[in-house]
Amino acid sequence: MPGTIYGDLMKTLIEYAQKGIVRDEFKTLGIQEHLSAREIMDRISAGEIVIMRQQDRICGIGRGLKTKVNVNIGSSNIQSDPDEEFAKAVIAEKYGADTLSELSMGGNVRDIRQNVVNATSLPLTTVPIYEAAAKGGISRMDEETIIRTLDDQVQEGISSVVLHTISNNQIEMIRKSGRIMGVVSKGGSIVASYMYQNACENPHISRFNEILEILHEHDVVLSLGNTLRSGCIHDPRDPAQEAELVDNIILARRAREAGVQTIIEWSGGHVRADLIADNMKYYKSRSEFPLFVAGPLPMDTAVGYDHIAGSVGASLASGHGADYLCYITPSEHLGLPTHDQVRDGLISFRIAAHIGDSMKYGPDDTDKNLARCRRKMDWEGQFKYAIDGERARTLRKGTGPCTMCGDFCALKLMNEIIR
Amino acid sequence: MPGTIYGDLMKTLIEYAQKGIVRDEFKTLGIQEHLSAREIMDRISAGEIVIMRQQDRICGIGRGLKTKVNVNIGSSNIQSDPDEEFAKAVIAEKYGADTLSELSMGGNVRDIRQNVVNATSLPLTTVPIYEAAAKGGISRMDEETIIRTLDDQVQEGISSVVLHTISNNQIEMIRKSGRIMGVVSKGGSIVASYMYQNACENPHISRFNEILEILHEHDVVLSLGNTLRSGCIHDPRDPAQEAELVDNIILARRAREAGVQTIIEWSGGHVRADLIADNMKYYKSRSEFPLFVAGPLPMDTAVGYDHIAGSVGASLASGHGADYLCYITPSEHLGLPTHDQVRDGLISFRIAAHIGDSMKYGPDDTDKNLARCRRKMDWEGQFKYAIDGERARTLRKGTGPCTMCGDFCALKLMNEIIR
Repeated sequence: MPGTIYGDLMKTLIEYAQKGIVRDEFKTLGIQEHLSAREIMDRISAGEIVIMRQQDRICGIGRGLKTKVNVNIGSSNIQSDPDEEFAKAVIAEKYGADTLSELSMGGNVRDIRQNVVNATSLPLTTVPIYEAAAKGGISRMDEETIIRTLDDQVQEGISSVVLHTISNNQIEMIRKSGRIMGVVSKGGSIVASYMYQNACENPHISRFNEILEILHEHDVVLSLGNTLRSGCIHDPRDPAQEAELVDNIILARRAREAGVQTIIEWSGGHVRADLIADNMKYYKSRSEFPLFVAGPLPMDTAVGYDHIAGSVGASLASGHGADYLCYITPSEHLGLPTHDQVRDGLISFRIAAHIGDSMKYGPDDTDKNLARCRRKMDWEGQFKYAIDGERARTLRKGTGPCTMCGDFCALKLMNEIIR
Repeated sequence: MPGTIYGDLMKTLIEYAQKGIVRDEFKTLGIQEHLSAREIMDRISAGEIVIMRQQDRICGIGRGLKTKVNVNIGSSNIQSDPDEEFAKAVIAEKYGADTLSELSMGGNVRDIRQNVVNATSLPLTTVPIYEAAAKGGISRMDEETIIRTLDDQVQEGISSVVLHTISNNQIEMIRKSGRIMGVVSKGGSIVASYMYQNACENPHISRFNEILEILHEHDVVLSLGNTLRSGCIHDPRDPAQEAELVDNIILARRAREAGVQTIIEWSGGHVRADLIADNMKYYKSRSEFPLFVAGPLPMDTAVGYDHIAGSVGASLASGHGADYLCYITPSEHLGLPTHDQVRDGLISFRIAAHIGDSMKYGPDDTDKNLARCRRKMDWEGQFKYAIDGERARTLRKGTGPCTMCGDFCALKLMNEIIR
């Protein structure tokens, strides 16, 4: 039904930008990011920037913008508590997440999602195949369920959906790849399992035009998932991963043509530290679309501390081109995160985004402002500019002299000498 | 008294190595690091490697060796509890520190140090100027106290001492530098304050031969401190820092000549992420001595999470040449660390060392072994290869199915398809 997709009815930000109509979103994002509305519109037209919206809030992702951080929450079919996910959403917003992905597969996932939407003003992403599979298992899933679940979620007012567009050709390449870890994407493996059980092509590809129409209707951002990411640092970038990128760039260009904003997720998972920059350059030399990276983890053995290893990988990724990071919590590979783990994962990735931005754009004034307060021993000023002032205040404990140096504080001693 | 220093009595590892006498230390280190005793000896002779010893334990630092991690502990004159420091030393050893620095300035520092020595088998480093200053304040310190305190500590059987060799010329450069943070080294500022109050040159420089004789006597490793490190990321590498390095290389060569093993600490503190690699190359193109780096922190605003930002900086530093890292805890800039913070800081820096080594030498088999266990869902195997298996086990909670994915585990789903 290309008539409906390409019709005269202008609806999406890409179409407004391409027609030169200056929407408030373009002005607002320009102010947030110190760019002109014109620059924003040019980049949206070209697919280089997407805008996710939720209520009055807008979040821009892509070329020349600050690196953004996504928080994943959601129940599993083993552990499901709607209050938990609500609380995690509140924590994500409080500690500065840019976007939220609600990935529940257990309990009443629709109620959980609605709870989460009500809990925050953050743009919300879902993976519709999760709910489609959760309804009655993969074996009872059919194409109509897949499309209808996606449509239902889009109608609810989410900001973005993830599609796993793995092809049979890619699955064949994985079979021959010799990878240690195979495929580690949950969404991708659900889709692959469906394709295998039904001996069919991926419905996300075969019915892509129809999906674009649904997304276009509500100007929902399309995020093309990274099914074939490496699951350990010894699994290198391989032909399957490169094919996934080529295929997703083609889909992203079709989406842009249809007025649908698109992000590509690539090179997340586990990647050797010395190859992260190269992967980012590989992507950027081929794709104009915003690059979303999960992690990456530059080591496999940081179990229980994956948020820290992930912060190292994500700093390198964002410093060399990633536009959007998906956080990792300390319980990655182990279970669902607790509230504190959501906070720790998020802050670790905001640290990575901040370091990455300092590499992309040079250090910003926040660091300088904090340093000036530190020099003056202005503690309140330091808490104000800190990434989590509340925690800094708690760890500082009390208002007496700093326990670290006491009378032998370097700043105090040197003030006598050099000032 | 050059006769005593350069005399025939062979005593230090440098001298054994230079004479071609194969000591057990050389063989043991070779086995630990997969190098021949010959290679170890050549590098020790050249000053490229040092060996710290404590009881039967040896720790090699320098060219071609795994990156090592140091843990700082110690009381301040505001907060002092010998049991605390004892407990922290035990934690440092338990969680895999390579060396320990005991930096107490409050309470009975000698007793605390003795407690710490008894608590662990880790090579111990001290900063003698701390105890010298703590005895009666900087104003009551004199040259004899400084030298005698150093001598006393060396007699006690420590492995390494830090000297702050700041010169009046360097202080003058700092006065003109326009730095936001000035000087942030506690030891360096104590020495500078002494020099200022007494209008004299640094006794560590003017009495360097005598100090070398003391260190030679017990083959204690000399660590030349990084007084002029940047205290915020907007304070760049400046002429003062470059002069400090030039001066310290000259001192290190004098030390090598005297048979004293030497490390140089440089480019720690706060350094922009995009300049860390360049600083490491700057050092390595000028100095053959092992490079010790504190941090560095690539952002100033991670207060309360400096161990995480520090892990990013230290990964880059070690990946580009640093041989030895000094950890940073979450309470850096805020106070003395708790036990848990010592553990968290240490693990964060062991992560950095591991990532750095993967950049220097390629990824090692630990990651591959863990990945193979993960693929087989062998949890015990994963705990065995994890950097902190105990914590991984605790976070995993119980032995049921993983709460993260449940029935929709990617590994399980894909096993049906690709195997």
